[in-house]
Amino acid sequence: MVDVQLLQDVANRLRVLSIQSTNAANSGHPTTCTSMAEVLSVLFFDEMHQSLAEPRCPSSDRLVLSKGHAAPILYAAWAVAGLFPEEKLMDLRKYDSDLEGHPTPRLNIIDVATGSLGQGLSCAAGMAYTAKHFDKMDYRVYCILGDGEAAEGAVWEAMNFCQHYKLDNLVAIFDVNRLGQSGPTCLQHQTDIYKARCEAFGFHTIVADGHCVKAIQAAFAEAKATKGKPTALVLKTFKGSGIEGIEDKENWHGKPIGDKAESAIKVIESKMKNTRPTNVPMKAPKPVTTEALGLIKLNEPPAYSIGEKIATRMAYGTALEKLGANNNRVIALDADMKNSTFSEKFKKAYPDRFVECFIAEQNLIGVAIGCGTRQRTVPFVSTFGAFFTRAFDQIRMGAISQANIKCAGSHCGVSIGEDGPSQMALEDIAMFRSIPNSLVFYPSDATSTERACELAANYNGIVFIRTTRPVTAVIYDASETFKPGQSKLVRKSSSDKVLVIGGGVTLHEALAAAELLSADGVNIRVMDIFSIKPIDKQGILENAAQCGNKVIVVEDHYEEGGIGEAVSHVLAEAGGVTFRHLCVRGVPRSGAPAVLLDAFGISAKTIIRSVRDL
Amino acid sequence: MVDVQLLQDVANRLRVLSIQSTNAANSGHPTTCTSMAEVLSVLFFDEMHQSLAEPRCPSSDRLVLSKGHAAPILYAAWAVAGLFPEEKLMDLRKYDSDLEGHPTPRLNIIDVATGSLGQGLSCAAGMAYTAKHFDKMDYRVYCILGDGEAAEGAVWEAMNFCQHYKLDNLVAIFDVNRLGQSGPTCLQHQTDIYKARCEAFGFHTIVADGHCVKAIQAAFAEAKATKGKPTALVLKTFKGSGIEGIEDKENWHGKPIGDKAESAIKVIESKMKNTRPTNVPMKAPKPVTTEALGLIKLNEPPAYSIGEKIATRMAYGTALEKLGANNNRVIALDADMKNSTFSEKFKKAYPDRFVECFIAEQNLIGVAIGCGTRQRTVPFVSTFGAFFTRAFDQIRMGAISQANIKCAGSHCGVSIGEDGPSQMALEDIAMFRSIPNSLVFYPSDATSTERACELAANYNGIVFIRTTRPVTAVIYDASETFKPGQSKLVRKSSSDKVLVIGGGVTLHEALAAAELLSADGVNIRVMDIFSIKPIDKQGILENAAQCGNKVIVVEDHYEEGGIGEAVSHVLAEAGGVTFRHLCVRGVPRSGAPAVLLDAFGISAKTIIRSVRDL
Repeated sequence: MVDVQLLQDVANRLRVLSIQSTNAANSGHPTTCTSMAEVLSVLFFDEMHQSLAEPRCPSSDRLVLSKGHAAPILYAAWAVAGLFPEEKLMDLRKYDSDLEGHPTPRLNIIDVATGSLGQGLSCAAGMAYTAKHFDKMDYRVYCILGDGEAAEGAVWEAMNFCQHYKLDNLVAIFDVNRLGQSGPTCLQHQTDIYKARCEAFGFHTIVADGHCVKAIQAAFAEAKATKGKPTALVLKTFKGSGIEGIEDKENWHGKPIGDKAESAIKVIESKMKNTRPTNVPMKAPKPVTTEALGLIKLNEPPAYSIGEKIATRMAYGTALEKLGANNNRVIALDADMKNSTFSEKFKKAYPDRFVECFIAEQNLIGVAIGCGTRQRTVPFVSTFGAFFTRAFDQIRMGAISQANIKCAGSHCGVSIGEDGPSQMALEDIAMFRSIPNSLVFYPSDATSTERACELAANYNGIVFIRTTRPVTAVIYDASETFKPGQSKLVRKSSSDKVLVIGGGVTLHEALAAAELLSADGVNIRVMDIFSIKPIDKQGILENAAQCGNKVIVVEDHYEEGGIGEAVSHVLAEAGGVTFRHLCVRGVPRSGAPAVLLDAFGISAKTIIRSVRDL
Repeated sequence: MVDVQLLQDVANRLRVLSIQSTNAANSGHPTTCTSMAEVLSVLFFDEMHQSLAEPRCPSSDRLVLSKGHAAPILYAAWAVAGLFPEEKLMDLRKYDSDLEGHPTPRLNIIDVATGSLGQGLSCAAGMAYTAKHFDKMDYRVYCILGDGEAAEGAVWEAMNFCQHYKLDNLVAIFDVNRLGQSGPTCLQHQTDIYKARCEAFGFHTIVADGHCVKAIQAAFAEAKATKGKPTALVLKTFKGSGIEGIEDKENWHGKPIGDKAESAIKVIESKMKNTRPTNVPMKAPKPVTTEALGLIKLNEPPAYSIGEKIATRMAYGTALEKLGANNNRVIALDADMKNSTFSEKFKKAYPDRFVECFIAEQNLIGVAIGCGTRQRTVPFVSTFGAFFTRAFDQIRMGAISQANIKCAGSHCGVSIGEDGPSQMALEDIAMFRSIPNSLVFYPSDATSTERACELAANYNGIVFIRTTRPVTAVIYDASETFKPGQSKLVRKSSSDKVLVIGGGVTLHEALAAAELLSADGVNIRVMDIFSIKPIDKQGILENAAQCGNKVIVVEDHYEEGGIGEAVSHVLAEAGGVTFRHLCVRGVPRSGAPAVLLDAFGISAKTIIRSVRDL
């Protein structure tokens, strides 16, 4: 064990640097930092195995700072370790510094962005699960949570997951500093309640004085000795700890301490033996060699006959199985929907690479993000499309985390029928389009679904694949190629009067409409949008021009943020096109799929009417 | 107490009707229904006070069926009570019946839609809080949850809330039937773990045999006698209970039992004394008279001087206080952000009508929805705009619930500055626009913010008000009137070359650009979007035409689903306009607000460049 005085000195040095850097930035959360000074000092310089040379070393221990607003003290710890000069800390929160207000993976010391509270533990759980089951390495995972964020349900989803999967390589550290942003937290210093909750969620739980280095060291030793269950460390601390006149006082959240700094630092330094501990050594991770992920391909091309009727959700399961056959880093996660999303096909083929996350979609996404960090796995995540809305904040943070996850949402739109609106994804495209750097695919048949999954596996980022409940006819040959940003023409003549753009069920409605209209001598061009984001600007504009600049979009989605608005954005920037939008308006209801398509104006019948109008 | 045999007969009759109605629909979840047959029978015919004549009677007890897929048995209970003929149950899930696959308030027996799991308890908590603190009535609130959904974090957010506010008028009933959709639940029949968890979250907890009428009756009596804390009733049950060959078996989720029905019903009826209990009486609620909500007005008009600099988030707090002064049914809820969102102004003025929900946004929305049911209150909910993404699924379900809630999201866009992307709302407009029947207001000054709040209070539905962190200049006189679907021209001449549409900070950037351009002899028209949804189609098109059909939208939001796409949708349907969109592209970062506006291309400088390009 490392010398207690050194660790205490480091803790105080971290206090000083947190005060100074937030003062330099004239914003930030120094009091949130100082309550965790001791535990961070022990973690960095006594407990964890980390590498200055390779902060993202595959075998090093992981730390997730779920209370992301304490970023300055985390940065300070790396500076004290010698990763960069301490002066750089004074660039905190400046535009040209990567030391952002909350941690992001722009820094190679960060695996996942935090700052939206209550999300870190799920990511940590994903890392711990990966250590045990995919990496089969003995690195450990630590997550520091605030007490305020313990009110977030996502924390308890993660706790349940950790219990179920016996993640004894994970330690959840609750920094119970009593004060939230606008007042005391709801449990304040009632560590007994935290203890009861953690134990009820299956954690070996240790309550300790969070400002006592020795107690923290002992707790980590106990955690390491605990097998078969995760450990929770409930630390009683004080917000603003060590800052005279501010410690444990309200109204000091998210404020630099300004001109109180000088005297406060003097008091802190008076307690230190060595006031400038620098290049303090960390324990080294084990050397390890790992393979790059490489290209991920379907082990066999799609094998459907044109006209064959098969649900795209079923093809998703087949694609997953084929991708998994060729690459053992492909994993799948689901939230008790595997027999509806067909991820169960993957589970049957590779039970060791399937993670059942039960009905907890926030944790589902968080775990997937964690599993995908440091390129350890390529996670495919499935549930009903509608239920990804449950994890919008996690997906939003995933974009900031540069997460590499593939989300497959089944049961989109009114075409699911009788289950009714609660189960219908009608805002999923809007949601996933709004995620920066995301790809959004909406395959209309089984062949293109398999290819969408293959494209998704090889894109380093967040991908959404929208699948459909009812069967649809196969329209593409196995040899057809697909790429992001490329739509497909599925019906075309030299005398097309209107360009109709659809996806999923509505593409098939458009084809049916085209057939009927053609019998009446009216030709329309039918485009399969396939890639909603990026969208095929050129293809849309060229084909619109060839169809008399008349465009209809028909989609099983609400008006806002879906295919229609994506297309109208392209058209508006170009100008000169007449546009109509058929989509679901208002809250739908239960009924037979065909009845609903008609009632909500997205069936072949409505398309025909709209074409005639134009 | 009611005769046990009658209650057992009713339970079995509910089983039979659930089997028959799902068979008639050829879809649905009979096995999910039958596990709760006894508790529903006891609730309806022994425990709750409900009214056939007025199902939404303000003083009657509330029941929230959080496990919404068990809808058929709830409908059956009302039929057995005599609300409608039992034959109507056979229209389950048909388009022309309001007996939808999952419950919605299209039926007057339903207060909140369910079907996305884990949401009901928050709504129930809102109702129980309302009973105690706003209605000051003694109705009780019951919520039936599935065991699978206990994995949802939202449940534990709600539990924490119930504990904190000592909601002893609420009973959470866990129907622990062991089986989820695609396999066993993660805790199966470990009722001891449910008990430990519920107790750790402050519930008086009773574990009972969920198929024993007497045990359930005793449990409800014990709940009623328990003061100062809520009660949890953990019922050990069997999925498919009473259905021979199906009870406690896997692979029977969400499937009608088809041709097994006849023999199964025979077995069930063989246990009944009276196989057709009809018009079974319920206990009556207390008579009560309540007042309608009426018109809600600011008690004083906005009182700002043109040019005064004030943050719209601050004006939100002022507006809340003014609305609260005139109507004691206006309430406010926040998630530990009240000193940032300025809802603390309301708290200071009316502490009894402010509900601190701590950092748990899903529960925040759920509680608000519950508080707003049966027109009991008009809830205003505030947090950072970004963190409403945490509750997208709750808000989505809110639309199906016909919820009457007003959401105010502060800290939108990159203009918040140094805190960085995790705290910036950049997809909030996309999210709230996609909610059916929502209104979305984006006030650019303090005066219009107050009016937006007043409009919101009087709209029966979901409203989003987007407020800004930095100060902006007041541009409207107190006498200015605002309405949904009406944008405002804030700068206009007869020689305008371009129409620039902005909102919030970007409106002020547009005004600055106009000033600079005008010095160079170029006039632009500047429109304050104010109402993003509904959007001012006519105003936009007329003014675009008067500005040479050139339109620029500049917004502090991502490209997708925001003002730009809303406007481009209008323009595309009209055709013939040249359109440019200035917005935030890619994940932003920490930095000073002005630096970020410039770096992400939404400052006056960029607007000027874009105008010159056009």
